[in-house]
Amino acid sequence: MKIEIEKVGIVGLGLMGGSFALALKKIRPGCKIVGYDHNDQHCIEALELGIADKITDELADLYEMDLVILAIPVDAIISILGKFEALSPRTTIIDLGSTKKLIVESVPQSIRENFIASHPMTGTEKFGPSAALPDLYRGKVVVLCNIEDSGEMQRKTAKEIFSDMGMKIFYMDAAEHDRHAAFISHMPHALSYSLANAVMGQENPRDIIALAGGGFRDMSRIAKSSPNMWIDVFRQNRDNLMKAIESFKEELDRCEKMVEEEDWKRLYDWMKRANVLHEIL
Amino acid sequence: MKIEIEKVGIVGLGLMGGSFALALKKIRPGCKIVGYDHNDQHCIEALELGIADKITDELADLYEMDLVILAIPVDAIISILGKFEALSPRTTIIDLGSTKKLIVESVPQSIRENFIASHPMTGTEKFGPSAALPDLYRGKVVVLCNIEDSGEMQRKTAKEIFSDMGMKIFYMDAAEHDRHAAFISHMPHALSYSLANAVMGQENPRDIIALAGGGFRDMSRIAKSSPNMWIDVFRQNRDNLMKAIESFKEELDRCEKMVEEEDWKRLYDWMKRANVLHEIL
Repeated sequence: MKIEIEKVGIVGLGLMGGSFALALKKIRPGCKIVGYDHNDQHCIEALELGIADKITDELADLYEMDLVILAIPVDAIISILGKFEALSPRTTIIDLGSTKKLIVESVPQSIRENFIASHPMTGTEKFGPSAALPDLYRGKVVVLCNIEDSGEMQRKTAKEIFSDMGMKIFYMDAAEHDRHAAFISHMPHALSYSLANAVMGQENPRDIIALAGGGFRDMSRIAKSSPNMWIDVFRQNRDNLMKAIESFKEELDRCEKMVEEEDWKRLYDWMKRANVLHEIL
Repeated sequence: MKIEIEKVGIVGLGLMGGSFALALKKIRPGCKIVGYDHNDQHCIEALELGIADKITDELADLYEMDLVILAIPVDAIISILGKFEALSPRTTIIDLGSTKKLIVESVPQSIRENFIASHPMTGTEKFGPSAALPDLYRGKVVVLCNIEDSGEMQRKTAKEIFSDMGMKIFYMDAAEHDRHAAFISHMPHALSYSLANAVMGQENPRDIIALAGGGFRDMSRIAKSSPNMWIDVFRQNRDNLMKAIESFKEELDRCEKMVEEEDWKRLYDWMKRANVLHEIL
């Protein structure tokens, strides 16, 4: 017997929120989605694209929902959570933010049981409602953090929805999540932005970029990501990010030194070690 | 009227050579392909996969070919070019190596007009005959270097074949190619290998990698590339590679410093600058 999910609020109608709405309509065709977004143009597009059935600009309209999804930048998640009051005990609020520690620390105690801290490990470099994809979440990992602080009904709801969307659920402490996410996602974004800026800073970037093959395309794809979203992530996960950048720099310095000293045998072994990813990913 | 290409030799029956053979069979169905590879298993696979019609271990069997493709690591290209003698004036030899300056400098004068220096900007992280794809080259860029030193007939042959394969042809001086390739391909490989090793060097790499989304998958894909091939590239393009790594490190240091000093406004502008890639790529 499925948990009843009829009334859904989606806060943030961009790539993540829009895709969540489309996925939800596939697994729960009967649900009614109310959209909330400070960008009027996005609200109009969301209605046109069938992402939302209705738009509201009153947060109070979301208090009685079965499910509320927070798909906004991580600083905005913290700020909006502080404004929720008098939620129905049946309501489940799930945030989709890329950081977790500051968010779980800042949830007001009065709505702590309503809240599920999640991080779906998916996305694209595109943004806005028109970037939404119904299968963005399918087959991907979602991390649920500090789940023991959420209410029993909310835990059940989150597990059921993410499973029905075809996601693999991992459980983790929020601090551990942030350490891992710094390595697997936040630092790689810093690398991609740096790579793009390094090429763009050359005398003739267009001549260089004209030669781009799949390698450069892949390495620079996430450099197209929204600064609005990523500034907040870098700020909230600053210390872990800096540690991850340091670890990366140690490896790059190692590589550079072997090239400089023409130590090809050791460089070969170092590349072979990187190849082990083959076996894991 | 198409140039006659009946007898073709492919030296190196892996991803690049195998894919070239499959593409050639689509545009010139009548051609007969003779494969040459020091790896016996690859020779057997190439026959099974229809990449080669015949195998030889005599280099001299390639002297009378209409077309010879060198799809082997860049050091091996230099070494094998030194062994070609008494080529038919009708033969066109094309190398597909990722570096160009040392290669064009080392072509023996006696076969210089036979030779076309090319770098197709395509590939995957996979290798061996089973990795070959008939459309690996379609829609991609190929750089032809120092084309004025090649014979007229050879220039015509190369242009016709690459065009028929659906490639966009760029012309460039070999030294300029190597500078650009360092930024767009060789340095990004150094980054990807470094990223893979940075994660692999953590206490619990499998726990971290379990969370990989599209960003990390893309950033680490080319870290799976063959060290055999990439050691040679790094050696031949050492100076340009080191300059490109330095440019990248300046950007990453800039990013790290802004994060450390919590200078979010400047970091935002820096990310916005990277976003300009949107408009170019």
